[in-house]
Parts: sequence; C-alpha cells; structure tokens
Amino acid sequence: MTARLDLEYDGGAFAGWARQPGRRTVQGVLEEALAATGRPVALSVAGRTDAGVHARGQVASHPGEPVAAARLNALLPADVRMLRSVPAPEGFDARRDARARLYRYRLLTRPAASPFERGRALHRRRPLDRGALEACAELVRGTHDFTAFTPTQTAHVRFEREVSRAEWAQAGTDVLELWIEADSFMRRMARVLVGTMLEVGSERRSVESFGALLAGRPRSEAGPTAPACGLYLEAVRYDSGEGRSA
Amino acid sequence: MTARLDLEYDGGAFAGWARQPGRRTVQGVLEEALAATGRPVALSVAGRTDAGVHARGQVASHPGEPVAAARLNALLPADVRMLRSVPAPEGFDARRDARARLYRYRLLTRPAASPFERGRALHRRRPLDRGALEACAELVRGTHDFTAFTPTQTAHVRFEREVSRAEWAQAGTDVLELWIEADSFMRRMARVLVGTMLEVGSERRSVESFGALLAGRPRSEAGPTAPACGLYLEAVRYDSGEGRSA
Repeated sequence: MTARLDLEYDGGAFAGWARQPGRRTVQGVLEEALAATGRPVALSVAGRTDAGVHARGQVASHPGEPVAAARLNALLPADVRMLRSVPAPEGFDARRDARARLYRYRLLTRPAASPFERGRALHRRRPLDRGALEACAELVRGTHDFTAFTPTQTAHVRFEREVSRAEWAQAGTDVLELWIEADSFMRRMARVLVGTMLEVGSERRSVESFGALLAGRPRSEAGPTAPACGLYLEAVRYDSGEGRSA
Repeated sequence: MTARLDLEYDGGAFAGWARQPGRRTVQGVLEEALAATGRPVALSVAGRTDAGVHARGQVASHPGEPVAAARLNALLPADVRMLRSVPAPEGFDARRDARARLYRYRLLTRPAASPFERGRALHRRRPLDRGALEACAELVRGTHDFTAFTPTQTAHVRFEREVSRAEWAQAGTDVLELWIEADSFMRRMARVLVGTMLEVGSERRSVESFGALLAGRPRSEAGPTAPACGLYLEAVRYDSGEGRSA
C-alpha cells in the first residue's frame, strides 16, 4: 500500500523541504509527526522547495497506509497543514510520477508595502512594463536549455525543461503573478526566471537579451534570484489514476 | 489646512485603534511617527477598531499640512502602512464626516486550517448552511435597533443603525466573506452579528430567532462575539468632495 499526502506550508520559518541535520525543514517536521504516530517513513516529494518558498499544493508519498490528515494536523506546527492523506495506487511515488509542477510568483506592485503581504509577495515600488513581462513569458513557453537560470554548481544530466504554461496575471488591484508550469524545475529556476524578467520589466534588459539566455547561456549572464517569499508551489500534475490532477 | 490619511494595518499585534497608556495601539504608533516629523497632532479616525481587528481602508485626519506617506512609512512599524496622505477640504474630519463604514468578515471553511490564514480568518471546520446565512444578511439590511449586538455597558444615545449592504460572498474555494456597510457601527456590532449568524448557519438558532433580535432585544439573547482576527475595516464612504469614495 502507498499513501499520498497533499499539503500546504508557509515556508518563512523553514530551511526548505529537504531534511538537514540541525535545521527546521518541512520534511523533518512531517517525518517526525509520522514517526509519532508509529509510522517511521522516508517521504518522497514532488517539489523540493528551497528555504522560504511556500507551498499550497505540495504532494508527498510514503509506503504503507495513510495516517488520517486530522491526526497528523494535531501533531504538526501551524505553518504546515495536511490537506488530505489518502491511499494511492500501488507503487505511487510523488516525485518520480509527477508529470508537471505549477509555481506562482507574487509581486505587490504599489508604492506602499502591505502589512498583509509581508513574507507573502515581493514588493516592487515602481511600475513594471507589463507588455515586456508578457513577452518574456511567451519566450519561456516551450522546450529550452535553462542553464542560465540555475546555479552553476548544480549537477544535472540535462538542462532542458519543457514549460507548458507561463503567463502573468493581475490578481486584484495591486498584485501581479507569474504562473509557470514545467515538467520539472531545476534549483532556483523559477526565481532566476522572475529576477531576470523583472530586469526586462524595469527596462534594465531587453526582451531580446532575455530570449538569448534560453539557448544555454551561462548563469552569469542572467539576472538575480528573486526572493523566496514570493514563490509558491501551487500544484503537481499526475497522470489520471494517480490521484487528483491539478 | 487639513490632512487626510488612508491606511492599512494588521491588527494582530495592536490593542486596537484608540491610544491607551502603556499599550501598543495604532493611534499611538501613528501619532508618535507624526510627532517624530515635527507634527504633534491628535488624530480623528473613521473606525475605532477593537484589539486584533484589521483595516485595509481606514481613514484618519489631522489639522495642518499632510506629511508625505513615504516619510511616515519610513518611521512606522511594518504592520501599519500609510497608503496616502493628502490635503483634504478645510475642516474635514475623518470621523464626523464619514457617511458609512464597510467591514468584511472572513471565514475559512474547510476541514484543515491554513498556514496562510493564521490570524487572517476564522477557521470553521464544519460546513455552514449558506442559505441560512444569506437569510440573516437579508434581514439585517435596513434600519434596526441593534441593542442585542453590542455590550450592555456601551453608552449610546440611540441604538438604531442603518445597514446599507449586507451580503455573504464566496472568495475562492474555501473562503466565505460577509460584507456589511452601515452609517456607523456600535462596539463589537459586526462581530456579534457574525457570531449570531454562525449559530444560524450551523443550525443552532433559527432565522426567525435571529430576526427577532433586530427589534432591540437585550445583548444576552444574541450569540457570541466572533473573533477579531476575521474582521477588516475595508472602506469609509464620504460625500464627494471630501476625498476618495469607497
């Protein structure tokens, strides 16, 4: 038997997903809660989020029967919540079986910061060129070599990723969001894409220069990594029959 | 000259709007920031929010020239932000001139709590009867005696208030909101209305019993005060010519 866990967390007080000795991580906190119910397991996860990154639709799995979500929530700190915990098809693995991950990056675009967006969005005081941002999103769609958008020390067999969705959307008066879905993301990829797009949106880089990066240029030619607080793992897509599609 | 201030605050760490010796209040923090710019003033305010209540569209005023919003924000803690600070018509008074206040109450309605709604919404695990909630909102619209919905010790000349808007609206999948506007609100009025409506929505009180309270029944017959964390002062309405209408 295999269990599938759907969960939400505020990444602000976590050193990311992956268990690390002496650090507070989402995996560490969850595996401790599971162990406390008598279920010592190692979790597989769809998106190994970095320190400070949030999740609204993270998916994890472990061998064995699911522990009721309410029971786990009673053992978890308030910044992680189990949305559901259900039996999955035999052999389901949240990481290996994921077909695509959907991320959202939130920008607060107005002169004043907001007490309600502290740690929840990147604050940009100055207006952005929305057309330039959309031109970048359009260039990103499709299959490209994203070497420029992940730290050079990252060891990958291939640097190509297939972006199935990339679009900027207005959310209320003052929030602008990038929605981006790909088969998988390399480390920091979503945040370096945002950081570089913001250079284009504030007229410090041309759309053409952005597009050129997608052909496997080195990391040093791309822009900065946008802060973690604006990034959310929104959903993970699986083939039907492997649980909820998002 | 008169200045009008529009502001936002997360009420979680404040003992309410009104200055109190030895307590951290929004008025206290703002008047200190104004004093630090060399403008010692006493603020008038449209909505004297209670401890823990949030504001997204609070309006205050003071005699004299406005201090630039960016200058005040540099002096204010992150849980209060000045959205704008502008000259108002001679003699403008944020409290006296307000024609109506609009509040919103947010409920998170799903089995699991949310890391992103901590201190921002009241969590209700069990489903609510949406039709019953709407029937209550409909009854509340119009002019009624709200004695049942404010603490008995409150000294008021009149207990009648005119509710110009009251409706429940779905916000996303799991958030249900009451929007309520009245000429003015007595202390705790919005929260006791919500607390009593929630009894109706969970079948612990009839719609008829709710309606009967609107004829000046005593406080003891109404329901509990809903927690402050779900309540937001959204906007204040003024006659045109007295600044932005909301």
